[in-house]
Amino acid sequence: MTHATFRAIEPSAVPLYSQVRERLRERIADGTYTPQARLPSESEIGTLLGVSRITVRQALGDLQKEGVIVKVPGKGTFVAETRPSQELARLEGFGEAMSRKGHRIVNRVVKHALVEASPLVAARLRVAPDAPVTEIHRVRWLDREPVSFEITYLPPAIGERLRGENLAERDIFLILEADYGIALGHADIQIGAINADAALASALRVDPGAALLRIERLTWTADGVPLDFEYLYVRGEAFQYALRLPRHP
Amino acid sequence: MTHATFRAIEPSAVPLYSQVRERLRERIADGTYTPQARLPSESEIGTLLGVSRITVRQALGDLQKEGVIVKVPGKGTFVAETRPSQELARLEGFGEAMSRKGHRIVNRVVKHALVEASPLVAARLRVAPDAPVTEIHRVRWLDREPVSFEITYLPPAIGERLRGENLAERDIFLILEADYGIALGHADIQIGAINADAALASALRVDPGAALLRIERLTWTADGVPLDFEYLYVRGEAFQYALRLPRHP
Repeated sequence: MTHATFRAIEPSAVPLYSQVRERLRERIADGTYTPQARLPSESEIGTLLGVSRITVRQALGDLQKEGVIVKVPGKGTFVAETRPSQELARLEGFGEAMSRKGHRIVNRVVKHALVEASPLVAARLRVAPDAPVTEIHRVRWLDREPVSFEITYLPPAIGERLRGENLAERDIFLILEADYGIALGHADIQIGAINADAALASALRVDPGAALLRIERLTWTADGVPLDFEYLYVRGEAFQYALRLPRHP
Repeated sequence: MTHATFRAIEPSAVPLYSQVRERLRERIADGTYTPQARLPSESEIGTLLGVSRITVRQALGDLQKEGVIVKVPGKGTFVAETRPSQELARLEGFGEAMSRKGHRIVNRVVKHALVEASPLVAARLRVAPDAPVTEIHRVRWLDREPVSFEITYLPPAIGERLRGENLAERDIFLILEADYGIALGHADIQIGAINADAALASALRVDPGAALLRIERLTWTADGVPLDFEYLYVRGEAFQYALRLPRHP
């Protein structure tokens, strides 16, 4: 294995092991060490950076706790799979959740139209069938890849007002809360899977038939009004959702 | 529309509307009214069953609250999509969750072997790589269809003991808790999607390439020991997971 070069450790108020940890993180982030690659041994890293093996071990321990690396006893230390994931612990917009993790999100709005509610959309949003609703289609890009196609239905009073907003860079949830003063309460979510049809495949740059997560999400205001009904189609091989379930809540 | 026949309403201590509700439920359960089919109007049902329209409305209200039917103002009342789903609110075995909903679960054990832990399985279960672990493959049938293929890794002390158990009809979680006295704490779950390969397609009776939910689940004891690591492959078009996410937990 050709060893990566690291920025030198410098005299600093930052503890040595923190500096080592960040040097390693840089090399993982820039792709020098790719997912599943084996890192150099603790003593090799120590030699490369001019620090003790104990210091390296402390740095690796931190990265392991974060899930950035995986230590396999007797085999070495490996870069963890870095498939991005969103925790399902609270209701968050995709941009909100992923930018907190250091990802760059861009949304491409491909449709923003007033349509007649289908029976299902009408039932979910509790409006009359054929009532007008705003339908928004967005392709959401994570770093340099499209990861999800989202179809959003909203009452026109809100959906049409959103035409004036920066939907390319901001989550609808944040606009509703921060700009429109609408407190969100919870969302009911259903998760299944489907094969991409030609339109989804083209939008998400995958082959037709690729496996997608199919999510129905109905978001309610804190006042108990169903406000935002969505279908999310998510590239299941490139992205995943994570949650922790207690046996006895 | 040809109207279904119903069992007659009988003099009984059971309130009229409850009887009407159960008559309707029977005809939906037996497929007389299929998902998305429109039910007869309230007055038609009333005539068929010899009860008032008010009584019918009360029965329909109950079924709507349960999600069995959907009322679309101006269009009528429709049978809801009945795709079975499991709530992700607490950690439950598939059998446990689905039999509570009246489904019949049968598991077909297709492999039960002592194998060497892969690096990933070893890391998850915190055993040495190449250490022996028990690997169990099960196809889980819901009513008359296979819906998931589950690969389970357990320490041999537990995994080998399970050879003596009725895995065809009982969840591993229940055996661990009720029979082995091991309290479960929580599970960490990751949800993605993949296309079925030939083996999964054959086991689940779907076409190769069909979209499956791919779930990694690591279940911990209440004492904080990682005990049970699994891959679940679930027919995404036939089954879904449901959860409710609060905006501010």
